[in-house]
Amino acid sequence: MHNLHGIYAPVLTPVDASGAIDTARAIDFSRDLLVRGCHGLVPFGTTSEATAFSVDERMAFIEALVGAGVEPSRLIVGAGCCAVTDSARLSAHAAELGCAGVLLLPPFYFKGVSDEGIFRAVAETIERASNAGTLRILLYHIPQIAVVGYSLPLVQRLVEAFPGVVVGIKDSSGDWENLRALLDGVDDFRVFAGTELLLARALERGGAGTITAVANVVPEQLRAFYDGWRADSTTDELAGLERNAVALRGVLRDYAAIPALKQIVAHQRRDPAWTRVRPPLVEMERAEAEQLLAQTAAASIELTAGEAMLP
Amino acid sequence: MHNLHGIYAPVLTPVDASGAIDTARAIDFSRDLLVRGCHGLVPFGTTSEATAFSVDERMAFIEALVGAGVEPSRLIVGAGCCAVTDSARLSAHAAELGCAGVLLLPPFYFKGVSDEGIFRAVAETIERASNAGTLRILLYHIPQIAVVGYSLPLVQRLVEAFPGVVVGIKDSSGDWENLRALLDGVDDFRVFAGTELLLARALERGGAGTITAVANVVPEQLRAFYDGWRADSTTDELAGLERNAVALRGVLRDYAAIPALKQIVAHQRRDPAWTRVRPPLVEMERAEAEQLLAQTAAASIELTAGEAMLP
Repeated sequence: MHNLHGIYAPVLTPVDASGAIDTARAIDFSRDLLVRGCHGLVPFGTTSEATAFSVDERMAFIEALVGAGVEPSRLIVGAGCCAVTDSARLSAHAAELGCAGVLLLPPFYFKGVSDEGIFRAVAETIERASNAGTLRILLYHIPQIAVVGYSLPLVQRLVEAFPGVVVGIKDSSGDWENLRALLDGVDDFRVFAGTELLLARALERGGAGTITAVANVVPEQLRAFYDGWRADSTTDELAGLERNAVALRGVLRDYAAIPALKQIVAHQRRDPAWTRVRPPLVEMERAEAEQLLAQTAAASIELTAGEAMLP
Repeated sequence: MHNLHGIYAPVLTPVDASGAIDTARAIDFSRDLLVRGCHGLVPFGTTSEATAFSVDERMAFIEALVGAGVEPSRLIVGAGCCAVTDSARLSAHAAELGCAGVLLLPPFYFKGVSDEGIFRAVAETIERASNAGTLRILLYHIPQIAVVGYSLPLVQRLVEAFPGVVVGIKDSSGDWENLRALLDGVDDFRVFAGTELLLARALERGGAGTITAVANVVPEQLRAFYDGWRADSTTDELAGLERNAVALRGVLRDYAAIPALKQIVAHQRRDPAWTRVRPPLVEMERAEAEQLLAQTAAASIELTAGEAMLP
């Protein structure tokens, strides 16, 4: 069966001066994250600015990534759109390429929609994407951004209706009670914490791992924590890694997360092109970026540079 | 110059049993609304379930509509997506076809984005759509659904930066103070009320008209009100029309608006196929639909059937 567990990065998407996806930089960075410890990648998660790119732009990049030799079995592709036809097209495409799964936002334009409506959206996505290959869906619950989310009864209903297809969830609510309810309330289900801060508690209750924005900048530490936890390392070692994660989150809290993470990557890779974002996000101003980097240094946050650098 | 004023319907989108746009029914209905008094139509507004359809589905329908003889000068096409590449593609397409304008939602996935970020999204949409034809944009402010909206200073900045391109706004906030601020604060600007309940007050201050969901079911009355207001009809006549509108809104308030409006159209056209919606919306159950129609009857709301019927 599929092997969905561990540390996943919702990969930042570098863009060139024209606003197009910078495919060369993106592939290089993706490979680097896998080398540095990520079990897998989530291209076109929220941190990837997924919704800022068209379906065609997204499919072209996934093809390029797989074409460049990144194992599709290590990819969970963000595929949730407002239109079921779009979600189905992205899902079918990922399944055809042999990707491990897709991460499915509910349609997020209309607010206050019923569980029945979201159920139908997922069902129709699955139906339209069928015959494309082996489709495995992780539901994507991030109510603080999407506003629309997956309730526990809806998750249970989807798992029951689509066994082997709806196989897991990323819970980015940041709410431990919700994460715990998912861990306890759905059998044989891959539950990923949307933040590394809840990783240990999630693993203790049978969680699959974490899909977290900061895996873009500290993949080694997250992997060490995950492996250490699995190997019953001493509490001291793990506590040190956890302190670092908490300190990094503490610094990031004062900034728009995606521009800040791109600044850190630009710093790590000594490559200013990484600071660009696509509208409606705005890249950090220089003074703010310097302050951010000074704060990470002051907090003694270890920001490794990685091995692979652009030529 | 463009002639954007009066009563516009954000046209309901009928779908067939497979979930595809029912092009024949949609064209027939669009023509009917124009015959029955609408000055123009807004295909792919919120009421059209715009975001539930892919860019390709939306473009194919607009082409079919214009191909069927509906004057593009009477169309304002909903074109705002989360990706500027999608918004630009829809905008360029509408401009190429000679449509009067496009209605532009801001990118609505990320919340709490800055005015600068939304400004850049609009600017990039305009830049990418340039050379396509004469592009005219109405901004679409509907914060209760999109959550992201256009502030007054942002509107002023956009009008100043793109004169003759950013020509107006649809304010669906339902907030008279916001609508008044737009009417008073932006020169030479087409301000449409997002609800007929604010139409009279908007017209008094130089408003352009209304783009309102209920124009799908009572276009004659809205047109009569608009023409009467322009012609200085007696207050009694106008008050009667206004009472009817208020009564209709009062009934609709208790239901999900789009499924309810589709039920009313199905009733008016004696065509049950009209009740279908696309996920994540859910069509009304029979008992609820019967209650809705009983309430409109009890409130003595005049629901005209229109002349054109499907063969």
